Amino acid sequence: MSSSRSVRKLEVVSPVPADIDIANSVEPFHISEIAKDLNLSPNHYDLYGKYKAKVLLSVLDELESSDNGYYVVVGGITPTPLGEGKSTTTVGLCQALGAYLDRKVVTCLRQPSQGPTFGIKGGAAGGGYSQVIPMDEFNLHLTGDIHAITAANNLLAAAIDTRIFHESTQSDKALFNRLCPPNKEGKRKFSDIMFRRLKKLDITKTQPEDLTPEEVKKFARLDIDPNSITWRRVMDVNDRFLRKITVGQGPEEKGMVRETGFDISVASEIMAVLALTTSLADMRGRLGKMVIGNSKAGEPITADDLGVGGALTVLMKDAINPTLMQTLEGTPVLVHAGPFANIAHGNSSIVADKIALKLVGPQGFVVTEAGFGADIGTEKFMNIKCRYSDLRPQCAVIVATIRALKMHGGGPEVVAGKPLDHAYLNENVPLVEAGCVNLARHIINTKAYGVNVVVAVNKFSTDTEAEMNAVMNAAMAAGDLMLVSDMDTFSFITFPCIRRVLEGLYSHTNDQKYVDLGVAVQRACASGIQQLKYLYPLDISIKEKIEAIAKSYGASGVEYTEQAEKQIEMYTKQGFSGLPICMAKTQYSFSHNAAEKGAPSGFILPIRDVRASIGAGFIYPLVGTMSTMPGLPTRPCFYEIDLDTATGKVIGLS
Amino acid sequence: MSSSRSVRKLEVVSPVPADIDIANSVEPFHISEIAKDLNLSPNHYDLYGKYKAKVLLSVLDELESSDNGYYVVVGGITPTPLGEGKSTTTVGLCQALGAYLDRKVVTCLRQPSQGPTFGIKGGAAGGGYSQVIPMDEFNLHLTGDIHAITAANNLLAAAIDTRIFHESTQSDKALFNRLCPPNKEGKRKFSDIMFRRLKKLDITKTQPEDLTPEEVKKFARLDIDPNSITWRRVMDVNDRFLRKITVGQGPEEKGMVRETGFDISVASEIMAVLALTTSLADMRGRLGKMVIGNSKAGEPITADDLGVGGALTVLMKDAINPTLMQTLEGTPVLVHAGPFANIAHGNSSIVADKIALKLVGPQGFVVTEAGFGADIGTEKFMNIKCRYSDLRPQCAVIVATIRALKMHGGGPEVVAGKPLDHAYLNENVPLVEAGCVNLARHIINTKAYGVNVVVAVNKFSTDTEAEMNAVMNAAMAAGDLMLVSDMDTFSFITFPCIRRVLEGLYSHTNDQKYVDLGVAVQRACASGIQQLKYLYPLDISIKEKIEAIAKSYGASGVEYTEQAEKQIEMYTKQGFSGLPICMAKTQYSFSHNAAEKGAPSGFILPIRDVRASIGAGFIYPLVGTMSTMPGLPTRPCFYEIDLDTATGKVIGLS
Repeated sequence: MSSSRSVRKLEVVSPVPADIDIANSVEPFHISEIAKDLNLSPNHYDLYGKYKAKVLLSVLDELESSDNGYYVVVGGITPTPLGEGKSTTTVGLCQALGAYLDRKVVTCLRQPSQGPTFGIKGGAAGGGYSQVIPMDEFNLHLTGDIHAITAANNLLAAAIDTRIFHESTQSDKALFNRLCPPNKEGKRKFSDIMFRRLKKLDITKTQPEDLTPEEVKKFARLDIDPNSITWRRVMDVNDRFLRKITVGQGPEEKGMVRETGFDISVASEIMAVLALTTSLADMRGRLGKMVIGNSKAGEPITADDLGVGGALTVLMKDAINPTLMQTLEGTPVLVHAGPFANIAHGNSSIVADKIALKLVGPQGFVVTEAGFGADIGTEKFMNIKCRYSDLRPQCAVIVATIRALKMHGGGPEVVAGKPLDHAYLNENVPLVEAGCVNLARHIINTKAYGVNVVVAVNKFSTDTEAEMNAVMNAAMAAGDLMLVSDMDTFSFITFPCIRRVLEGLYSHTNDQKYVDLGVAVQRACASGIQQLKYLYPLDISIKEKIEAIAKSYGASGVEYTEQAEKQIEMYTKQGFSGLPICMAKTQYSFSHNAAEKGAPSGFILPIRDVRASIGAGFIYPLVGTMSTMPGLPTRPCFYEIDLDTATGKVIGLS
Repeated sequence: MSSSRSVRKLEVVSPVPADIDIANSVEPFHISEIAKDLNLSPNHYDLYGKYKAKVLLSVLDELESSDNGYYVVVGGITPTPLGEGKSTTTVGLCQALGAYLDRKVVTCLRQPSQGPTFGIKGGAAGGGYSQVIPMDEFNLHLTGDIHAITAANNLLAAAIDTRIFHESTQSDKALFNRLCPPNKEGKRKFSDIMFRRLKKLDITKTQPEDLTPEEVKKFARLDIDPNSITWRRVMDVNDRFLRKITVGQGPEEKGMVRETGFDISVASEIMAVLALTTSLADMRGRLGKMVIGNSKAGEPITADDLGVGGALTVLMKDAINPTLMQTLEGTPVLVHAGPFANIAHGNSSIVADKIALKLVGPQGFVVTEAGFGADIGTEKFMNIKCRYSDLRPQCAVIVATIRALKMHGGGPEVVAGKPLDHAYLNENVPLVEAGCVNLARHIINTKAYGVNVVVAVNKFSTDTEAEMNAVMNAAMAAGDLMLVSDMDTFSFITFPCIRRVLEGLYSHTNDQKYVDLGVAVQRACASGIQQLKYLYPLDISIKEKIEAIAKSYGASGVEYTEQAEKQIEMYTKQGFSGLPICMAKTQYSFSHNAAEKGAPSGFILPIRDVRASIGAGFIYPLVGTMSTMPGLPTRPCFYEIDLDTATGKVIGLS
């Protein structure tokens, strides 16, 4: 294993400075240096400035015969609203593997949504000494992928309303003649994309003039039912006033008003497509078959029916290439896709993981993060993402905090923006012990996929050794917890200083107190690749699949609203029942009730509605109401953000 | 003068192939080659893939002491709805100067809006053998500048509605306390941006706790009058259903609904700011002072009052760097900004022109295009853009077509998408002769700025020699036209094949029939730099300025609606009357009536309303109704557009 040329080891300062100060203290390597370490030559990537590059998908073809590296997914226990440091752990683990353990490693991360950067949340580049840099470029624009998604999503939205409008004002024949105008020689012809619709309609004729009036009508009139439209517009801004709007109120739109709304861009199905696609041709197919609603006769209407699937692909052609960045210690990061973790599957892209696995090669490591707790992120990673990618992880990391374990043990409510209760700031071993049931269930569920599990506790300065020991003891006392992984590793890792990974961590496998997470992950990966056991097969009914997932939550049953029943029936009739399921559920509990902490069981999981992302390739049942457009607080983050116009540096971004 | 290394001469084929086929027949140079020809080293630019680079603004500081090249602006006569080939002429002229006449040259173009690319219009990269390449990258995304504008514009929009919402639900004190929350030490402080508002309010206190309740109220409560809000949301998509919408209909918004709408992104004031700014510090200032509406007391409310001017600047920090591309013949192009040519000034950016003028140096040429006819584009170039840039053009080109001259001479209406009347396809000398009055007025108006004028006729294959001679004869017969430029050059240029520039063109200055446009422009520039004579001084009243412009249109007077009078009074009272004027008028006539062709005179110009872009720095009177959001036709361009997924190439983009 050759030593990586571009790694740097950080000078660690105590107390740990602010994230932005740490990020600014480091001059990033030119991204071509990072690329070179991965054996990428300049024709393998496109530079986007000095610190970002898009790795071209063609790399996959070139490396087709190479072996993959180890594949590690990072999930977490059920989090508090403050987050438990999963991104930081992911980045820190990779810095440990790459900069200290001399292994080839690539971190695969989701691109953060730009909206929340200016709202409450701030950036998402990790924290402390475990960050992706430059953090301003990571958090803003990046290489334009989300902007491309916004453009494509909204072109499709405009095409829908405009098509309904034009259909309402024209006869079948006029509509058809406009759709197939005569060329210079006076001859009408179908454009290529129209043959997709003709095929769907079982019309094999190739000349417009050969269509019967009935076929003309079927072809030209999509007859979209406005009430069935599920396609909304998107914007990468926290704009709560766009959640519900009425469009078409201009005089030229002749009263064709319609209620609709905007989601934040990362909630677009196109983001889910980007995350789940495997090639340009696959993406073209998925974008074309996205369903936007039904005809009045109940037939699903797709982007290709509207003639726009090709244009959407063109808008997304660069977005399919993942963006190469670096950690503070110069290890490579691939940033790509950032689908919502409830109405979508919340995992970074398949293509980034695939490229990374080839680039690190055998003995190398790819660490990818799954959104929210393992009940959501890891479950969807396994049953949706791995199904489409055909990749198999060797190891799953579960990130926990003493804080979250206390909450699960019965600690007071944790509210973002409010001071933490003293239970979280002072030693409270019984709360920790009681909360371990949550961790235990995540471990059991994750192990059920057949992967090795490593637990990483993201330790805060207020956590005490007695509390850490309590987790260990609880682990050892609980039979299941004893088997946290097949190699019996139970690691704790402290943050925000990844250095400590190497300085001293706990393990219950032996008395040696200094086994780090990186070593644990290495051992988990090396202990043998197993068969990935999915939670459910695809060829059972939608309801059976929903029930299998509900059972993993601890539910004793599932109940459906009338609306949900109707939708399941419709999707089944439309031939979509073979898709995997993407549960839209709160991340704050195994159950549908965010207030139920720990490991609830015996509850009935209510399914309010069922929707589908046919292009992305999943059915998503709604358990409760999901907000898909955040708002801005009275004093948003943007009050602190400015540009130092003398240096061009961003200030106040956190 | 050293020969440019990267130029290539094209093999010209007859008949001329489709634009996309010509574009695809050429392998572009790596953009670093083009940069090298301009003496740019890699630290002067950021690559965005292989064929685009952002030239960093810092180049200006480095070259501060260098001399500028010649500055040429390309305008046109009053166009038909088909466009008269101004972009093609601009690109062709530069290819002639750079690839054939061995001069240093940079073409400065506006970035096209992505929306119309998928609607009716198609791309905007020039045509035939005079194109910017790669044309798909030019027409789509580019380097993300318009996406950055969309993001910034909409962040400000979200901040407005959310602020009104939060103000409506909180007391002065609660609002103030939320705006200035206590830090970890329990101490409240103002963020930097708040001092801008404090200064505006003449509050010199620096500690939140020192403010009186009255000052707290003044500071914290912007008290925006919802009916006064002029800031709309934007999207770079042709989405007619967003022209007029109602927002805030979600239950969480508690009934605070409001009618508003979306414009296409290039109509955003932020686009106008980008085009008119001269530095990062200047941009920070302009973005912060953009006025979004008034308080109920009639005070203008700015982006900085909302605390968001810094964040907008951060979003725009990369967009301020122009994008370097190339023509088919390898001459450099700077693409930057694309403000609307009616509600804004329709010219590419000042920073691109400034950088280009330094890069070409003395004896080099910078050719920049001004949107629409010279009555709009060139007028605003001179009176708005040159005023803010302090740059002086030596030469103005006026592009004409026989087709448009015939229309001005009384030919039938020209309608986009409908076949041309036979008058335009067959010889009709009297129509051409009659139409020259339009050309004559544009020449006279342009010459009044003190620059040399060169006329270029974009000749189509159906134009006859007799018609071309008719223009010459008309020119010679009309006293004014005899003096088309101080060096008496009257060039004709034929397209789409720039080669013909060199092969044979007309000139009335001598019998030599083969003087090309490039040579004409060289001579016009070399004949002495004159003083730029503005059409109006800034220190007269808004009405006097409007009337000076109206007179240049041929109007005998101006009439104002009550609303326009009210707005003029308000802007004057608010201290904005010293700004230049940006008329929002149809481009299809000198007058307000698109049907009035030729050179109408004696009409009264009606001013319907008056608005202001305070950040960009102009007042814009509305003459008639301007659509700021295009729509999609029944069969949009996107039906032809797709990706060849085997090669990754875009097909069907034109």
